[in-house]
Amino acid sequence: MLKDLKDKVCQANVDLVRCGLVTLTWGNVSGINADRDRVVIKPSGVPYERLRSADMVVVDLEGCVLEGDLRASSDTPTHVLLYRHFQSIGGITHTHSRHATMFAQARREIPCLGTTHADHFFGAVPVTRPLTAAEVEADYEVHTGAVIVERFADLDPRAMPAVLVASHGPFAWGKDAADSLKNAVALEAVAEMAIGTWLLNAQSPQLEAYVLDKHYRRKHGPNAYYGQKESLGSGLDI
Amino acid sequence: MLKDLKDKVCQANVDLVRCGLVTLTWGNVSGINADRDRVVIKPSGVPYERLRSADMVVVDLEGCVLEGDLRASSDTPTHVLLYRHFQSIGGITHTHSRHATMFAQARREIPCLGTTHADHFFGAVPVTRPLTAAEVEADYEVHTGAVIVERFADLDPRAMPAVLVASHGPFAWGKDAADSLKNAVALEAVAEMAIGTWLLNAQSPQLEAYVLDKHYRRKHGPNAYYGQKESLGSGLDI
Amino acid sequence: MLKDLKDKVCQANVDLVRCGLVTLTWGNVSGINADRDRVVIKPSGVPYERLRSADMVVVDLEGCVLEGDLRASSDTPTHVLLYRHFQSIGGITHTHSRHATMFAQARREIPCLGTTHADHFFGAVPVTRPLTAAEVEADYEVHTGAVIVERFADLDPRAMPAVLVASHGPFAWGKDAADSLKNAVALEAVAEMAIGTWLLNAQSPQLEAYVLDKHYRRKHGPNAYYGQKESLGSGLDI
Amino acid sequence: MLKDLKDKVCQANVDLVRCGLVTLTWGNVSGINADRDRVVIKPSGVPYERLRSADMVVVDLEGCVLEGDLRASSDTPTHVLLYRHFQSIGGITHTHSRHATMFAQARREIPCLGTTHADHFFGAVPVTRPLTAAEVEADYEVHTGAVIVERFADLDPRAMPAVLVASHGPFAWGKDAADSLKNAVALEAVAEMAIGTWLLNAQSPQLEAYVLDKHYRRKHGPNAYYGQKESLGSGLDI
Repeated sequence: MLKDLKDKVCQANVDLVRCGLVTLTWGNVSGINADRDRVVIKPSGVPYERLRSADMVVVDLEGCVLEGDLRASSDTPTHVLLYRHFQSIGGITHTHSRHATMFAQARREIPCLGTTHADHFFGAVPVTRPLTAAEVEADYEVHTGAVIVERFADLDPRAMPAVLVASHGPFAWGKDAADSLKNAVALEAVAEMAIGTWLLNAQSPQLEAYVLDKHYRRKHGPNAYYGQKESLGSGLDI
Repeated sequence: MLKDLKDKVCQANVDLVRCGLVTLTWGNVSGINADRDRVVIKPSGVPYERLRSADMVVVDLEGCVLEGDLRASSDTPTHVLLYRHFQSIGGITHTHSRHATMFAQARREIPCLGTTHADHFFGAVPVTRPLTAAEVEADYEVHTGAVIVERFADLDPRAMPAVLVASHGPFAWGKDAADSLKNAVALEAVAEMAIGTWLLNAQSPQLEAYVLDKHYRRKHGPNAYYGQKESLGSGLDI
Repeated sequence: MLKDLKDKVCQANVDLVRCGLVTLTWGNVSGINADRDRVVIKPSGVPYERLRSADMVVVDLEGCVLEGDLRASSDTPTHVLLYRHFQSIGGITHTHSRHATMFAQARREIPCLGTTHADHFFGAVPVTRPLTAAEVEADYEVHTGAVIVERFADLDPRAMPAVLVASHGPFAWGKDAADSLKNAVALEAVAEMAIGTWLLNAQSPQLEAYVLDKHYRRKHGPNAYYGQKESLGSGLDI
Repeated sequence: MLKDLKDKVCQANVDLVRCGLVTLTWGNVSGINADRDRVVIKPSGVPYERLRSADMVVVDLEGCVLEGDLRASSDTPTHVLLYRHFQSIGGITHTHSRHATMFAQARREIPCLGTTHADHFFGAVPVTRPLTAAEVEADYEVHTGAVIVERFADLDPRAMPAVLVASHGPFAWGKDAADSLKNAVALEAVAEMAIGTWLLNAQSPQLEAYVLDKHYRRKHGPNAYYGQKESLGSGLDI
């Protein structure tokens, strides 16, 4: 069951490597079905070059395994919690990509310094608070999702499709698995460019609000005019 | 019609990836015909690996689509405005390449710190002023071209074949599509090297004017002696 | 003899290149047999693309060559000394990988700034003291091993599977050759991310001890729940 | 004539790309014959992927073309001047590799901060003085060689097989074309690592003289014990 979703989630996991986002097995992508009661996710610790669609693990929204011979990613409780709270998202990508993780470790948000950022993220990419000792001790991965949800109390996950978990790394999401991967790619790029921008000018100004608005509306919403009216195919367009 | 130009523009767009200048679909190359009344440009949001010559869009110098089933790049109004004002150029490359974009976001020009720079750019690569709210609200992409033209009031686009649009990224141009791509590649390299040079020596001197003159004249103008007398073929020589 | 071990050690040496850890011939991997009386190691100065399993050199725990037509790696005395003192390790990887070597040259330990680090190294990765003139003059490579062992007087090589030799570069180890290579890959990644983290925030906090504990126990020890119960194959899973 | 030398010089030029040392056509390798009266060098401005052995240009020690249909590299006068003054060298590699060029532009020597450096360069890699206006105006490329020779008045080109030309970039040499390329690769690596080392510790100490001596003698001279007694093949061992 869910063969199409498994194919797409598997492909997005394999594409993690091609996009240069992962070292060793540090990354995973998931997707949710249209009924929002089944999540397909990468098995834990399996190398990408050996991943096959049939290896994907199916879990319910509590993270209980419904199908699959392998253990689900250890980050599964974080993924399912995000799907429960963010009704608008259909796919999640978690990586330890280098520059986004630098921001997560420095516990700083990624400021919006240019239009590249504005095309994907409506404002600064937020960072969560650190987890407490109690949150780490029991149900660590559930609490990782909880601090993300807490951080988004006043944020719309459609306008801000990524977050940095303090001292850990980035999570990105989107309308499906491939879209979440695109946002993870964009996140890594804007993180790298923000570091270099600050090296050149520690007082680099934030992008003016009217440019941020324009770029976001140019790609999203009813009057979007970027890209084609119909998607030209499936998969990651990179 | 314009099959040869479409082939060359398509190839230059595909080469963007090979040159490491693009992430996702953040880049486009165009070319103009000899009569200077038709511009061929990449369609918007289409992945490079699927681009075919027949997908190229033909527009007039107002940016109206004359041929092509796909939407033209959203940056088309910027390209055509540059062709109208810069009579000497035959191709334009726009990217969000990492290091050039860092300078654009820092709103700093790229200084000429060495002979690599002098071989391609006759002096510091300029940065535009930020666009006003009114310029962003209506005809944004046209105004993006206009601030470039404004910045070049006292500059020769043949001697300075690139610019940084503040908070956005680089545009480069040349005698044709492939030549504009070469300049975009050189721009990214000199941007990266300028950042490292400043890390090593914040007071690194500008290249002496007599060396800048020499290098520019060595590759350009009547007494050029770099390269072969006749081009050894078409396409990007990298 | 030791054909299986030679195959695995050869493969790990070849994988050094694929992992981006080596320039020219600056890196070597070794493995020890189950009886802990034979070490298989890369021959000195041989390019990786020409390495074959039969080229591997077999030495005893004094570093004397028992089998092989080529000279053993010049670092062989360091490897065998580590095997003699660290009974728990089965493989060693030595490289001059860029970012780990930057720390070694700066003579600074790599602090634990995030969970990526905590998943592999239980605390800051230590740096040895510089060797004295006498230690360098005679039996240099033996003394290189000796300063590592000296530095680990109060450290468990299972919990801290890597070290930086001052002004030289990293050594990493693991349960076998492939595992030592994985730790060398992780070491390079956390070194690069630590540099960027400090650029963003010179006061970036160390990872909280309770998170370090959690991550280490999640992947190691009796209650580990990361990865699959049984290894899914041999070789480097990257 | 000189077919073997042409093959080797052509291969070294092609390998420049594989080693990541060149952008566009910014690099060239040459070699000299055993009689030291003929130099084989890359033609100017020809892309590496189209280079064939028969394209190599043969010049005498004045730089006059003896054989070849294409123009010789514009850097030919620099190469032949170095061959005239440095009797011990058989090959020269010139690039604009990123990190070595950063040092050249910053007009700083590359300090010896570790054993990677010591294995190839006996001390800090020197930088030339800037050329005067008169030196640039006439016979620029000859004077480029002359300032290198001037800088080496008290240096042995065998012990220090590289130099940085101020505001320009690196030249490296060796016993033949392939060996000069190896030194160019090592130079780029130690330049990159020196920058990172200083980011981590602006007071990073120079490598102790007794370690520098040891490493240099370990690879060079009568008691060398690194690598194999006989070379294992031709070409670049990377």
